[in-house]
Amino acid sequence: MKIESIDFFYLSMPEVLDIGDGSQDALLVRLQAGGYVGWGECEAAPLVSIASLICPMSHSACKPVQDSVLGQRLESADDIARIGNLVRQNSLDLLQTDHTLSGIDIAMWDLLGQKLQTPVYQLLGYQCSYPKTPYASVLFGDTPEQTLQKGRQIRQQGYLAGKFGWGNFGHGTVASDVEQIHAAREGLGADGILLIDAGTVWVDDIEPAKLRVNALKDCRVTWLEEPFISGGFNSYHQLAKLSYPVLLAGGEGAHNYHLAQHMIDYADIGFVQIDAGRIGGISIAKKVADYALSKGTIYVNHTFTSHLALSASLQPYAGIEHYDLCEYPVEPQLLGTEMTHDHLLPDDNGKICLSDKPGLGISPDLEAIASYLIDVEITISGKRLYRTPVL
Amino acid sequence: MKIESIDFFYLSMPEVLDIGDGSQDALLVRLQAGGYVGWGECEAAPLVSIASLICPMSHSACKPVQDSVLGQRLESADDIARIGNLVRQNSLDLLQTDHTLSGIDIAMWDLLGQKLQTPVYQLLGYQCSYPKTPYASVLFGDTPEQTLQKGRQIRQQGYLAGKFGWGNFGHGTVASDVEQIHAAREGLGADGILLIDAGTVWVDDIEPAKLRVNALKDCRVTWLEEPFISGGFNSYHQLAKLSYPVLLAGGEGAHNYHLAQHMIDYADIGFVQIDAGRIGGISIAKKVADYALSKGTIYVNHTFTSHLALSASLQPYAGIEHYDLCEYPVEPQLLGTEMTHDHLLPDDNGKICLSDKPGLGISPDLEAIASYLIDVEITISGKRLYRTPVL
Repeated sequence: MKIESIDFFYLSMPEVLDIGDGSQDALLVRLQAGGYVGWGECEAAPLVSIASLICPMSHSACKPVQDSVLGQRLESADDIARIGNLVRQNSLDLLQTDHTLSGIDIAMWDLLGQKLQTPVYQLLGYQCSYPKTPYASVLFGDTPEQTLQKGRQIRQQGYLAGKFGWGNFGHGTVASDVEQIHAAREGLGADGILLIDAGTVWVDDIEPAKLRVNALKDCRVTWLEEPFISGGFNSYHQLAKLSYPVLLAGGEGAHNYHLAQHMIDYADIGFVQIDAGRIGGISIAKKVADYALSKGTIYVNHTFTSHLALSASLQPYAGIEHYDLCEYPVEPQLLGTEMTHDHLLPDDNGKICLSDKPGLGISPDLEAIASYLIDVEITISGKRLYRTPVL
Repeated sequence: MKIESIDFFYLSMPEVLDIGDGSQDALLVRLQAGGYVGWGECEAAPLVSIASLICPMSHSACKPVQDSVLGQRLESADDIARIGNLVRQNSLDLLQTDHTLSGIDIAMWDLLGQKLQTPVYQLLGYQCSYPKTPYASVLFGDTPEQTLQKGRQIRQQGYLAGKFGWGNFGHGTVASDVEQIHAAREGLGADGILLIDAGTVWVDDIEPAKLRVNALKDCRVTWLEEPFISGGFNSYHQLAKLSYPVLLAGGEGAHNYHLAQHMIDYADIGFVQIDAGRIGGISIAKKVADYALSKGTIYVNHTFTSHLALSASLQPYAGIEHYDLCEYPVEPQLLGTEMTHDHLLPDDNGKICLSDKPGLGISPDLEAIASYLIDVEITISGKRLYRTPVL
C-alpha cells in the first residue's frame, strides 16, 4: 500500500491562556493508505507545523515535509524508518521538521498496526506491555502547608508518585526551597515516589543547585528534573556527581536522536524524558529507549496532552519492565480528554496499561473534535496551499 | 526608542529547482524603531518562519515570535540580548524559533548601527574589521581532469582558496576519491588553500573516512568538512585524532549556541562554521566566536545567499585577525545579487572587507526586490494573521 493522504487538523480550546498548560491546543494528523487510517499528534505550534508540511521548496535540502511522505510505500517497520530518513534528508534545513515528522511517524505506526492487526509495541519488538506507575504533576503550593496538602491529595487520588515544580522554586531562599521539599515528602508519605522539577531555573549555574542537594537527598527525591537548560551539559555533569543517589532528569526538549543521546553521554542524566510528539515520533523515541537501556539510563515519557499522544509516548518503552514510571496528564483541558473515545485510565493497582488493540489502540472522537477544529487557510501567489481538510 | 514593526518579505526566483543552491529564495526582515530602519535575513523556508512569527499562542512557552519583539525598547546591545532571551523563553517549544529570531536579531543590530552611526562590528566590541580570504565553493568534477580544470579556474578568478565537495565524493571507490583530491590540489596549485566538503556522506561511520585520510594529508588539505552528520560527535572525535594536521570543520547546522559549543567541546572540530541567519543571529554567532577563541577553534562564516546575509555572517568574527577565511557566495542566483545595492567584492588583493558604513553597510534594493516578492496570506478562523506587507 502507498500513502495516499496526510491531513493536519488544528484543534484549539476557544480561549488559549498564557499559562504553562500544553493541552490548550493540538495538531491531529490523519494518514490514509490502502483503505486504512492512522492517527498521530504533533506537539506544539500547530500553524508552524502545518506550514512546514506544505511550504514551497527552498532548495534540494529544504523541501516541504509532505513531499517525502505522500506516495511512499508503507508495508513494514522498515518503510517507516526509510520515510523518516527521507524526511530528515530532504527537509534538513527546515528547522520545524522533527516536530512535524513526529505526528506523521506516529500515524504511520498506528496505520501499520491497523493493517497487521497488532499493537504498536509488538511491532516495535516487545512481547508484552508492562503496566507503568503514573506520576501526578503539580505546582508547588505558595506555602509549605499548601504543598503538603497537595501531596496528600495526590495520594488520596490514588497516585503513588508525585512531581512538584515551578512556581517560586529556585527563585527564593534556600531555606524556603528546603521547606518546600520537606513538605512535599511529608504530604506524599514515606513510601511515595517524590520527583522535583526545577524547570531550568538555574540556567547553567551549578552553585544554587548545590545548595539544595542535601535536602533532595534527605527527602529521598527520585529525580531532580531540568535544574539547567538542555544545553548545559557540563553543569548537569558536575551536579550529577554531587547529587547521587538523587538522579538528574532531562530531555523533553530533544527534537532528534542525537540531542537525547548527548544528554545521556555528556550530561550524565539518570532519567531521559522523551516526547514522541517532538523527537521525530515513535521510531526515534524507541531508538533513544534502546540507547538508554545500553547505558543504564532510565527512560520515561514526556506527555501533557491527549491520550493519543500518551499512547504514542508509552509504546517506545512499553516492554521494558524496570522502566516503571510514566508521566500522566492528570488535569488536561477538555480538548485533551474529549479528543479520543478511548482513555488510558489507572487500573485497580493505580497502574497505566497500554491497550492491546491494533495500532495505538486509541480512536479519535470525530464528533467531539469537530467543535475544536480551527479553520486555516494559506495562500501563496494566489494559489491555496492549505485549507483545513474535512474530518 | 521602541520596536514599532517587524515585516517579513518572502522573495523567490520565478522557478525553484531541486538543486543544492540556497540562493533561490530568501526571507528579508524589516524592523522599524524611532524613525530608523534595520534589515536582516533568515536562512531557509520563508513560509515556515513567517508562520512562527505570527502563529496563535499554544501556551506560555509557545508564543509567536513577534510577541516578544514588538513594543520592546531598543537602545543598546543589552536590549538586543534581552529581546533574544525573551524570544527563546517565550517560544521555547516552537522549534522554528531560532531561524526566525536570526533575521530579527540581524535587523536589530543593523538598526542600532544606523541610530548610533556605527558599523555593527564596532558595536560588537571590535576596533577594526580585518580583510578575509574568500574561498570559492565548487562541486567536484565528474572526472579528475574536470576537477583539475575547476581548480585552475578558481585561481584564474583570483581566489586563493577553493572548496570541493559533494557530487560523487565518498560514494565511489577510495581510489577515485584519492584521485579527485590530488586533482583538486594540482588545479589549485601548491600555494592554494584546499578545502574538502564531504557533505555528511558517511553519516557517522568512521571506517570509510579513515581510508581517505592519507590522501588528505598528502595533499595538505586545510579542512575536511562534515564527514559526518552534526550529531556524530564520537565519530568526529575519533577521526580528528587520526586526520591531524588536517582539521575537521562543521557546525553549519547549529541553530543555537549550545549545539555549536558541543561540537567544539565533544566533536573536536578545528573549524566551526556558523550561519548568522540560522543560529539566532549575530548575537549568538558572536558568542560562538568568543567561545571558539577561548578554545583555539577557528571560526568561519557559512553563507550562500545575499550580501546582506554575508555582511551579517562576517560581523561576528570581523575583528579577529587570524580567523582569516570566509565563505563567499561565488555564483548566487540573480535574486541573491540583485537584493542589495551594495556588495562585498574582492579587493585588489582578492580579500573581502566589511564596509565601514553604519549598521551592516548593505542597503536592500527595494525596486529590484519588488519583482521577486511573493504574495502570502494566512487566515485563521476568518481572521487574516499575515499578508505580505508593502515594501
